[in-house]
Amino acid sequence: MTAKKSITVGIIGFGTVGAGTARILIENGDIIRRRLGAPVVLKTISDLDIKRDRGIPLKGVQLTTKAQDVFSDPDIDIVVELIGGYKPAREFILEAIRNKKHVVTANKALLALHGEELYAAAAASGVTLGYEASVAGGIPILAAVRNGLAANNLKSIYGIVNGTCNYILTLMTNAGRKFDEVLKEAQSMGYAEADPTFDIEGIDSAHKLAVLTMLAFGTPVKFEDIYTEGISKITPLDIDFAKDLGYKIKLLAITKMVNNEVEARVHPTMLPETYPLATVDGVFNALSVTGDAVGSTMFYGRGAGDMPTGSAVVSDIIDIGREILAGCVDRAPVTAFRERKQLKIRKMDDITSCYYLRFSALDKPGVLSRITGVLGKNNISISSMIQKGRKADEAVPIVMMTHDAVERDVRKALDEIKTLDCIAGTTVVIRVEEGNA
Amino acid sequence: MTAKKSITVGIIGFGTVGAGTARILIENGDIIRRRLGAPVVLKTISDLDIKRDRGIPLKGVQLTTKAQDVFSDPDIDIVVELIGGYKPAREFILEAIRNKKHVVTANKALLALHGEELYAAAAASGVTLGYEASVAGGIPILAAVRNGLAANNLKSIYGIVNGTCNYILTLMTNAGRKFDEVLKEAQSMGYAEADPTFDIEGIDSAHKLAVLTMLAFGTPVKFEDIYTEGISKITPLDIDFAKDLGYKIKLLAITKMVNNEVEARVHPTMLPETYPLATVDGVFNALSVTGDAVGSTMFYGRGAGDMPTGSAVVSDIIDIGREILAGCVDRAPVTAFRERKQLKIRKMDDITSCYYLRFSALDKPGVLSRITGVLGKNNISISSMIQKGRKADEAVPIVMMTHDAVERDVRKALDEIKTLDCIAGTTVVIRVEEGNA
Repeated sequence: MTAKKSITVGIIGFGTVGAGTARILIENGDIIRRRLGAPVVLKTISDLDIKRDRGIPLKGVQLTTKAQDVFSDPDIDIVVELIGGYKPAREFILEAIRNKKHVVTANKALLALHGEELYAAAAASGVTLGYEASVAGGIPILAAVRNGLAANNLKSIYGIVNGTCNYILTLMTNAGRKFDEVLKEAQSMGYAEADPTFDIEGIDSAHKLAVLTMLAFGTPVKFEDIYTEGISKITPLDIDFAKDLGYKIKLLAITKMVNNEVEARVHPTMLPETYPLATVDGVFNALSVTGDAVGSTMFYGRGAGDMPTGSAVVSDIIDIGREILAGCVDRAPVTAFRERKQLKIRKMDDITSCYYLRFSALDKPGVLSRITGVLGKNNISISSMIQKGRKADEAVPIVMMTHDAVERDVRKALDEIKTLDCIAGTTVVIRVEEGNA
Repeated sequence: MTAKKSITVGIIGFGTVGAGTARILIENGDIIRRRLGAPVVLKTISDLDIKRDRGIPLKGVQLTTKAQDVFSDPDIDIVVELIGGYKPAREFILEAIRNKKHVVTANKALLALHGEELYAAAAASGVTLGYEASVAGGIPILAAVRNGLAANNLKSIYGIVNGTCNYILTLMTNAGRKFDEVLKEAQSMGYAEADPTFDIEGIDSAHKLAVLTMLAFGTPVKFEDIYTEGISKITPLDIDFAKDLGYKIKLLAITKMVNNEVEARVHPTMLPETYPLATVDGVFNALSVTGDAVGSTMFYGRGAGDMPTGSAVVSDIIDIGREILAGCVDRAPVTAFRERKQLKIRKMDDITSCYYLRFSALDKPGVLSRITGVLGKNNISISSMIQKGRKADEAVPIVMMTHDAVERDVRKALDEIKTLDCIAGTTVVIRVEEGNA
């Protein structure tokens, strides 16, 4: 034990999560002190806007517009980076690490693209980098993967890690409404950004998946190697067909180990409606983690918001505070593994999945046999089929559910099918999960 | 960092969980070494029966019938106690602690009754006591309460922590079958013990609740202060009425903070069927944890079995191993709080809840007004009522759901109601949760 009697924290970024973090450090100071054995002192907050009243009693806290007042202050033990984005967040964190400060961040985008640089810098400087808040807000999922399930060879993680998408899909499913309409409503309620691209196109989920994959399998993964497909093309028609077939559509971030290769992909996925993950609605997040010893587990909670995300930030502060007070900062490696391996990230073409295929076809004799003929030739077999409504010489939807098939074969078959003269529009493809999700 | 190059473990007790733990340490040795940075060596296993083949490749592991060969071996860093029960488990653990060994145990009964003695002994000896496996098997719930949610003033934990009871209630609910019949089937399938008292009467759940309460609120709780009621009196009739009203019956272990007092109670509980906990079926466990910052979270997984429980045991071994290798063993306190407080444990008479009351009454004019008269006089108001079937002069069930009422008032009202001449049998009382479960 060192003689240290308190832990001093500075926050860079006084936005939503910065305000939540400050509120928890101040209002929950007593319970934090009782757990830690020493008080956590919030010394400084930096932000470009230090005028706006965030409604938090900041007695004794210094406000500054200069981030340097945080990352260069010799009194500060832990720097909390909450400005988000790549620049200048990366420079601020690297400066803090160079100054031998422990760092806590919620910045998944930065970790997904520059994580390796930051992990290496922290290791070289002998400091800890905490990022529990970067994935699934208040759910302590990184700790679960890193520590709680550390005895396992993990098999897979399936996560609903973007509340905006889950909110939109839930409203589309429960109220039969269209994507554009629901997105606008989500924006007006503050559940979606003015520019929603990162959320609805799956990019935010892919950032989180990069972090999860590294912790689960001890392998670096390049962000560009993650297949990413969002929800903007999901239609009420496909949601209805899914319902008829007993499925719900969720945007999933999936990482799994298959034959010593790692799959890492984000896409809309049809889940049997009885699966625990399928029951996760609204802005909630949840992750299903399967290990060889523990079997299936699920972790559920709020994935965003000032206080849930602040809860994760402060749990990292307490964790690092305990290490500082006990005089050991290299107890657990920042990347969860002392010994990492570069595993092969499987190409999307090589994955195996079941598929939902919705063809838009002219209702003529022989259509089915021509479609199934092409599928069969490409090693794709059908488990069920629905054709609803008949309109002579007009396009009607034909839905086929496949058994396990290889993505490359599906692409090849669809390329051939779209040239058939009985096909009247683009075929919709949604992957179907029947495994451990 | 010390110069230590490996972590040496001995196991006392080679039953189901002992075998699972040994299997994980041996078969998952590679992933454990990569995470920890050093190998975990299983040196010795003690058990009265060392002849039986458990189907595990024990190359190089010493088998002994003397527990002392484990807890007194100077080579062994971590002693794993998996014999269960109070005696001699308590003595073995205390001996190990005296010998400066870290201890990992799954023994909830021992922790519930003698936890304070063990925590104090570990603190005095400067060793760690790990007990993640004592509650909800493979679900890393203790770590979540202790670390992941440490920033929160926790409000409540509602847990399905006994797989035997949940299996029985699930079959009663889904197949409309009787308790005795399902219990027998559970016994034949190995989901219930030959003497099922600990499970079905809620005692096992109460043991786990004692551990959870201490970690959640930083207060010791005497086992005898936990109100405990099992599921043996639940009937298909009440399960059916619950369904009609939109509820499911689960055995819940509940701990919550109310006006700076702690409630700790185990009893059958009616949950709205849309609640996440209500969807947890079969042998699965789940805990809903609510904190002031994080809001509602839920943790779900297998609560028993050799491999899930072994997963939790080995996660503790890795955690302690990391501390040993980093040369810090007093990083986080065994009880989650550096500074504990003795909080008042609220008497069952003082709790507030909604209630399901099933009266057995003669179908005569004026019955309802006499019953509701007594309830009203005792400050109990009714939110809904069902009376099914009418048989002149025979007893019929009358079900009433109350608004929030005080347990003492309910007991007093029922004492008076049972003396009414229109009442033909015992009134069934089941508490109803409409809050944060």
